[in-house]
Parts: sequence; C-alpha cells; structure tokens
Amino acid sequence: MFVIITYDIGEKRVSKVCKKLREYLDWTQNSVFEGEITKGKLTRCLAELKSIMSDEDSIYLYKVENPKAIVKEVIGEDRSFDRLFL
Amino acid sequence: MFVIITYDIGEKRVSKVCKKLREYLDWTQNSVFEGEITKGKLTRCLAELKSIMSDEDSIYLYKVENPKAIVKEVIGEDRSFDRLFL
Repeated sequence: MFVIITYDIGEKRVSKVCKKLREYLDWTQNSVFEGEITKGKLTRCLAELKSIMSDEDSIYLYKVENPKAIVKEVIGEDRSFDRLFL
Repeated sequence: MFVIITYDIGEKRVSKVCKKLREYLDWTQNSVFEGEITKGKLTRCLAELKSIMSDEDSIYLYKVENPKAIVKEVIGEDRSFDRLFL
C-alpha cells in the first residue's frame, strides 16, 4: 500500500522519529514522509515510532490500499530530489 | 475527490498561503491541509496559490479520486480538533 505520514513531534524526539521514518519511507518535505510499504512493515514502523513518542506527540497516517489510486503533483520547486544529495 | 496538500513556503508568504488553503480545505497539522474538493475548486485554489508563491516555494498535492480509497489514522494526540477553538 501507499502511505503518507506527517508528524508533530516535540523537538527533543524529532530527529529520532525522522531517522526511524527514513528506514521505511521517503522523505518529501518538512515533516512529511511517503512511500509504498507492506502491512507488516507498517505495523513494525508504527510500533517503533510509538516507543519513541511522548504523550503530546502526534502522527497522522494516510493509507491508500492501491498505490495507483493516489496521484502526486508538485507545484513549484521539487525539493525532495535536491535534498537527497545534501 | 480527496486531497492532501503540504507546503514549503517562504516565511513572508506562509500566512497568505495558509489563509488561502483554509478557504478550501481543513488544516490538520503543521503545514498539512486535507479535505474533499471538486476538480473545479481545486483548479481555482491552485491558481490562487500560484499567484502567491515565489520561485523557491513548493506545494505537494496528493489526489485520491475516490475518498473511500484513503484511510486516515491518528497515532497519539489529535491536535486538529483542539486548534479549531484557539
């Protein structure tokens, strides 16, 4: 399936959460990750994220079973590509 | 259709972009908006956003034709509700 994950995480934990998300998904912009992932890997990813998260943190997950059902468009500069090389 | 819009906008223009997005969609978290919208309204929204945007700005748009094809889950605190009343 295709997922989009956005997060609102306290400063102290944000780098840990990003590092974890990078193991499973592609970073796109600000606090947004996306990518194709299996149900099993997603379950593992979320369990690992929960172990890092604190009470005030939140993660928003959008799941689309069929990756062809979602279309992505970039308006303006596509920064996700540049930053691969930073 | 259902759309998710995330943005990476220069500080000077960010409040204008947010204000515009609020006219069409629901704010969820950080720089993320979501909601159901018609093709016509989306075209208008994007044209209006482009008139505000500068060269270095970018907007990521995810479109799902059938709103039932996308499932949203919140892990942790759902802040979008709290902030409606701020």
